[in-house]
Amino acid sequence: MQLLERAKELEAAGRQIIHMEIGEPDFPTPATVIQAAHEHLDQGDNFYTPSTGNPQLQAALSAWYQQEYGLNIAARRILITPGTSGAFNLLYAVLLEPGESVLLPDPGYPCQRNFIRLAGAEAINIPVGPASNYHLSASMLQQHWTDKTRAALLINPSNPTGTLINDDALGALATCCRKQGGYLISDEIYHGLTYGRKARCALEFDADAIVVNGFSKRWAMTGWRIGWLIVPEALIDACRRVMQNIFIAAPTLSQHVGISALQATAQTEAMRSAYEQRRNVLLNALPQLGFDIAMQPQGAFYIYANVSRITDDARALCWDMLEQVGVAITPGEDFGTNQANQHVRFSYATGLQDIHEGVRRIETYLRQSNAVRPNNITNDSITNNNIAANHAEVSNGKP
Amino acid sequence: MQLLERAKELEAAGRQIIHMEIGEPDFPTPATVIQAAHEHLDQGDNFYTPSTGNPQLQAALSAWYQQEYGLNIAARRILITPGTSGAFNLLYAVLLEPGESVLLPDPGYPCQRNFIRLAGAEAINIPVGPASNYHLSASMLQQHWTDKTRAALLINPSNPTGTLINDDALGALATCCRKQGGYLISDEIYHGLTYGRKARCALEFDADAIVVNGFSKRWAMTGWRIGWLIVPEALIDACRRVMQNIFIAAPTLSQHVGISALQATAQTEAMRSAYEQRRNVLLNALPQLGFDIAMQPQGAFYIYANVSRITDDARALCWDMLEQVGVAITPGEDFGTNQANQHVRFSYATGLQDIHEGVRRIETYLRQSNAVRPNNITNDSITNNNIAANHAEVSNGKP
Repeated sequence: MQLLERAKELEAAGRQIIHMEIGEPDFPTPATVIQAAHEHLDQGDNFYTPSTGNPQLQAALSAWYQQEYGLNIAARRILITPGTSGAFNLLYAVLLEPGESVLLPDPGYPCQRNFIRLAGAEAINIPVGPASNYHLSASMLQQHWTDKTRAALLINPSNPTGTLINDDALGALATCCRKQGGYLISDEIYHGLTYGRKARCALEFDADAIVVNGFSKRWAMTGWRIGWLIVPEALIDACRRVMQNIFIAAPTLSQHVGISALQATAQTEAMRSAYEQRRNVLLNALPQLGFDIAMQPQGAFYIYANVSRITDDARALCWDMLEQVGVAITPGEDFGTNQANQHVRFSYATGLQDIHEGVRRIETYLRQSNAVRPNNITNDSITNNNIAANHAEVSNGKP
Repeated sequence: MQLLERAKELEAAGRQIIHMEIGEPDFPTPATVIQAAHEHLDQGDNFYTPSTGNPQLQAALSAWYQQEYGLNIAARRILITPGTSGAFNLLYAVLLEPGESVLLPDPGYPCQRNFIRLAGAEAINIPVGPASNYHLSASMLQQHWTDKTRAALLINPSNPTGTLINDDALGALATCCRKQGGYLISDEIYHGLTYGRKARCALEFDADAIVVNGFSKRWAMTGWRIGWLIVPEALIDACRRVMQNIFIAAPTLSQHVGISALQATAQTEAMRSAYEQRRNVLLNALPQLGFDIAMQPQGAFYIYANVSRITDDARALCWDMLEQVGVAITPGEDFGTNQANQHVRFSYATGLQDIHEGVRRIETYLRQSNAVRPNNITNDSITNNNIAANHAEVSNGKP
C-alpha cells in the first residue's frame, strides 16, 4: 500500500510508472452493464433493497450457479453484499467470537487477517508452498485445528500465487472441515479468470461450504461494490440481522446491473483471453530475468515469483525498482511472513504494451543496478524488445 | 423490523398498507443527480476511488461545510463511506477496544447498540426525556462517564423523537467530552430536514468532535449508499487503514454524483417543505386521536408519541393496528427500553394522501377496537376527513 502511494507520488511528479502492483482489472465496466445502468436510472428506483439483497439478483445468481457449476443453490442463501470486503466483514461478525480462530494460508490476501482481527478473533497463518499448490491441505488442518477453530479459508485461485487447488485436495479440505464441525470458507472472486482449467466451486464438494464471490474481478466492476456470500440455511437469519445493522443494504443500482452482468459472457471471455495473453508474456519473460516461478499459476492475474537469484531482500528490490526504473510490483511481505522476503507478486491487470515496457525496464534495472546481483542475467539471453517472442530458457544458477 | 416484514407480507397478500414505520424518504433521487449519473456512465470510470474517498467529493464537502455552517474543515478529514452505517462501523472499529464503552441516549437509533457490540465494546444506554430534548446532557455524562468510556453520542435531530438539542446544551456536551478526554460523536444525518430552526454542526462547538452525515435523508439517496465521517487529524491514518480493509472504497458512481447532489438545493428545499406540511398534519391530528407529544419535534421525519391514554402496551397496539386497519407504525421497543412500551414512532416519510388515510384508519381503529381504551376519543372531536384543517385541541385526560 505504501509502495502504491509512492508510485502515485512519482506519477504526480511526472514519472511514467508501470503498474504491476495493482489487484484491480484495468478493463472498463462491460458496455452492456453501463447500458443497463442507464436504463435503470431512467426507469427504476434507487431506494433501499431488502438487506439480504435485490431478490431478482439473488434469483439470477441462483440460476447462474446452476448454469456455471450445475449447483442448485436456493436464492435466499445468496446474500448480496457491498463487495467481497463487505461479505467477509459480515461473515466474520456472524461466525466468530473473541478467542476463536480461522486457519489461513500464508502467503494469502492480507485483508483477511485484518477482517478476523476486527471480529476480535485470531487469524492462524499456516505456511503453504508449491507442494499443496499454495493452498491449505487437509493434513495442515488436522495439525492446526483446535477447539477454538471455526473455519479454514481457501482462496482459489490464490492471491498472490494464482494457483488452483486440485479437486481431490479440495474434497479432502471440505471433508476435514465437516469432521471438525467447522466451515470451509471459499473465496472464489477470481473464478472465471482461469487458464487451462476451470475452478471448481467449493459447494460442489460440500453443501455447507461458505462461498464468497462478486462482480469486481471477472466482470471488471470494482467501483460498483457488489459481491455475495453464500451461507448454509442455518446462518441466514444471523446474517440478515447483522446486514440490517452494518450495511442496511448493498448499492441499489449496482445490484440491479449485476443481473445484466451475469449475461455479459462474451465480454468476460474477451477479458479472460486478454489476461491469458499477458500471462503468457510474463511467464515467458520473468524466468529469463531471474524471477523463478515454482508453480505455474492457472488463474487470477498474478504471478508469484521467487527472487532469490536476484536478491535476498524482496522489499528493497521492489522499492528500488520503483525509484530507479518506475516499475511497481508488490513485495511478498504484503501477503504474510512465510518466505516473504524471497518473493514478489506481479499483477498483469495492466495492458500488454505496459507489460512489455515493464519487462524492458526490469531488464535494464537488473543490468545496471548496484543493489542486486545480476549474475543470472546474460547479455544475450534477452536480445530483443519482444520478450514475448523469446522462448530461450534460463536455468537456475546459470551465470 | 419484524413488523415491517409482516406489513410486507400483508401487502403481498393484497392489503393496502399505510407505511408510517419506515425511516426512508419516499422521494426519488433528485433529477440533477440522475443526470449526473448518466453523464458519468458515459464519460467517467468506475474503478476504485482512494479508500478515503474521491478527492473531488471530499473537496466539495469541505466547501459545503464552509457554506452551510461557516466551518473550515480540511478535505482530508472528510472520509467517504458506504452510507452512515459504514461510517459508524468504521468509526467504532477504530475507536473502541473490547471493554470500552460509548454513552448513548435511550430512546435512540437501535443500530448504534449493535455497531458498538460488533466492535466488542459496550453501549451504555442512558434514559433521556423531554427535559433534555431527548438528548444526552453534560450532567448525564458526568454521572455515567467511566475510565472505560471513549465517547458520547448525539443524534441531532434525534431518531426517534425528531427533537433538536439546544445550542447551550450542545456546547456543554462538547466541553464535557473534551474534559473527560473522550469524543463527542454527532450523527447529523437529518440535518437540513428541520422546521423552524437550523441544526448546528457539532464542529461549531468542538473542533475535535466526530461528525457522521450522508446523502440518504436530506438528498433522498438511500440506495446510493454514500455517507461521510469527519474525524480529527489524529484519527485519519487509523481510519484509512481500516477503510482499506473493510470497504476498499465507497461506490464510485455514488461518490461522483454526490458532488452534484450538493448543488441540488432547490430540490432538497422542496422535499423539506413537503415534510413540513406532512408534519403539521400529524402534529395536529395525533393529539386529537390520543397520541401525546411531549416535545414538539423540530427535525427529521419522525414524531414520537406517548400512547398512555390509549394503551399500556405500545407493542400490542402497533401489531394490532397493522392487522386490523393496515397502518404500520414503530413500537417504542425498537429504540431502547426507557418507557418503550408507552411510546410509538410515526414516520412521515410517506405522502400526504397516505398520511390522511392513515389518520382516518387510526381513528376507525380506536373507535372500534376492543384492544384499546378509546375513552379519550369523542365522536365530535374529529368530524371531517380533512384532519389537517381540524385545529381543535384535545387536552390530556379529556373524556
